Amino acid sequence: MNRDDAIELHRYLNGKLSVDPKVDVMDKTDLSLVYTPGVGFVSEEIARDKEKVYSYTWKSNTIAVVSDGTAVLGLGNVGPESALPVMEGKALLIKKFAGVNAVPICIRSKSWEDTVHFVLSIAPTFGLILLEDIKAPECFRVEEALDKTLDIPFFHDDQHGTAIAVLAGLINALKLVNKKKENVKIVISGAGAAGTAVTYLLLESGFKDIIVCDSKGIINTKREDLNEDKYKLAQKTNPKGLSGGLGLAMSGADIFIGLSAPGILTGDMIRSMASDPIVFAMANPIPEIDYNDAVLSGAKVVATGRSDYPNQINNLLVFPGLIKGSLLSRKKVDNKIKIKAAQAIADIVSEEELEKGIIVPSPFNPLVVEKVTLAFLAQ
Amino acid sequence: MNRDDAIELHRYLNGKLSVDPKVDVMDKTDLSLVYTPGVGFVSEEIARDKEKVYSYTWKSNTIAVVSDGTAVLGLGNVGPESALPVMEGKALLIKKFAGVNAVPICIRSKSWEDTVHFVLSIAPTFGLILLEDIKAPECFRVEEALDKTLDIPFFHDDQHGTAIAVLAGLINALKLVNKKKENVKIVISGAGAAGTAVTYLLLESGFKDIIVCDSKGIINTKREDLNEDKYKLAQKTNPKGLSGGLGLAMSGADIFIGLSAPGILTGDMIRSMASDPIVFAMANPIPEIDYNDAVLSGAKVVATGRSDYPNQINNLLVFPGLIKGSLLSRKKVDNKIKIKAAQAIADIVSEEELEKGIIVPSPFNPLVVEKVTLAFLAQ
Repeated sequence: MNRDDAIELHRYLNGKLSVDPKVDVMDKTDLSLVYTPGVGFVSEEIARDKEKVYSYTWKSNTIAVVSDGTAVLGLGNVGPESALPVMEGKALLIKKFAGVNAVPICIRSKSWEDTVHFVLSIAPTFGLILLEDIKAPECFRVEEALDKTLDIPFFHDDQHGTAIAVLAGLINALKLVNKKKENVKIVISGAGAAGTAVTYLLLESGFKDIIVCDSKGIINTKREDLNEDKYKLAQKTNPKGLSGGLGLAMSGADIFIGLSAPGILTGDMIRSMASDPIVFAMANPIPEIDYNDAVLSGAKVVATGRSDYPNQINNLLVFPGLIKGSLLSRKKVDNKIKIKAAQAIADIVSEEELEKGIIVPSPFNPLVVEKVTLAFLAQ
Repeated sequence: MNRDDAIELHRYLNGKLSVDPKVDVMDKTDLSLVYTPGVGFVSEEIARDKEKVYSYTWKSNTIAVVSDGTAVLGLGNVGPESALPVMEGKALLIKKFAGVNAVPICIRSKSWEDTVHFVLSIAPTFGLILLEDIKAPECFRVEEALDKTLDIPFFHDDQHGTAIAVLAGLINALKLVNKKKENVKIVISGAGAAGTAVTYLLLESGFKDIIVCDSKGIINTKREDLNEDKYKLAQKTNPKGLSGGLGLAMSGADIFIGLSAPGILTGDMIRSMASDPIVFAMANPIPEIDYNDAVLSGAKVVATGRSDYPNQINNLLVFPGLIKGSLLSRKKVDNKIKIKAAQAIADIVSEEELEKGIIVPSPFNPLVVEKVTLAFLAQ
């Protein structure tokens, strides 16, 4: 992959998506069926029974991919125009892997309230809203507000897609080192959208001892610089009430999960961990520690967010199936479903693969979407 | 066309549009180009130079078809869900006739200010906003506000698409009866979105004597029940200051343009018109007078909005070319362009066709889109 190839492809394509008719219109009769006057009868039917919008329009198989461009990839708050190629890419993958129409909509939003209002405005047209690349803590406010008001499913992929992918990887990593979730000590570096969601999902699924670090060090209730969300995190994590830096947190830890910044994890920190260290260094595109450095420092299981190393832990394992399942079942993505989805992804890895150190399946394995979707429907 | 066929087709299709990738993703290398990390370089380029969003994303060839569902076809304020099959149909026709991607977005809007705010929010993602089926007078406020604030082209099709189609038909109808626009007396029935826009475009293009009627009769400055928009209409029309009903207005008129309600025009009214009456009865689906009744009552030229009679005056003659031309040129749809577009459509009708009483081309004639687009670019 090189920069010029990516830019040249985008220039050549001039947009990665096409909106196409599912039926041709060849004459006045066709016109009278797909447009006026025929479509008027369809409108009347829906006016009589709003539920029929799911039968007569694209709503049941179409989602919006909405971003305000405030936290795009590792680039930060680059704005809606810069977010658009990313959301087009996401929409392309959603069609490819889940068979679902996805419309990228990058918005100029003034506030999180504005984003909430926007999502409520477009809800009649879509079956699900996928939120993307909205920065913390605003993304938490958006989610809380939509949970109360939105009548269709939604989720913020940066939070929940990531959390499910991490949990799937951890389930298999623990098998490899023969440890149990109840007994391991985890350090999570990063208390943004992803780090926060990963923490809550791990707690929900039975992990007990989690320490979260942000750029200022270990998050604990004594710190006076915490916002509301980080204070809540402090209350639910760090059972021993530790203070200090990432180095202190890492001492004796079983698992490191990085959702933070390039290069912040050292070989010495890995050497200070408990036996058989598990290192998920997922900062993108440059991880918290280089893959090979992590292995050389004694990590037993290493995963990154990159496709050029083994064990890529990527949302692509999650969002296609989550979208498909949620659209088909019209169920919200709750914790129970998240845990089932993670388990379903983990279960796809065979014994033989596991023995080779592989903890997550390839996103190109068609079982991935199928099993995540089924996890949903089996509820 | 029958009702059951239209409903059955919509049930079978379950949405008339599909969102499709323009490139396949077969392996990790493909993934790294269309998605992370490759797309990150594209985002960076756009962050550096926002103009590049037109080169690297779908923006330059994609529009949003936005409706709040307040004035859907002849059905009225049936809401965004009921508007969705109509907007899907419009989007389908836009791709078919103009080759432009169109995304239907039906919104739950609280007010015209809310609709304006919505359009400004989505502007980064699209190259043009087509407004549809927004009721008067709110549609006028939306347009005034967007004229000042929106940085991409837009137009409300119910107003300007209709006005251009009517003007195109009138240009040829006048040739048939050998009258001049400066000398004819026109009665317009309907002072909603379409009637108002038609009136202003006809005045702009050189027609002098226009009387507008709403459901209460002739609009004049003495009426005390007029809203701001109708009062403005009264000031610019009705040069003799007439008061009374439609019947009075019609006496001696050369042209009737109906954008109002079924069956309100009588044979007697046509018989009271000047020689060689021109009757455009465009209420949909039931016109102001039945086509055959109009002919039998002495109308020399008759047009309707229906596809099952000759001379269907339909926005489909206009919006594909207007969208294509506006997207390509990035020019707003102003009066000069509207008049050129109408003339271009009228010019497609040959002498031979005109002699047979045909005043507008078929929307399936590929010249229609081409000429309307060129009218734009030739500016």
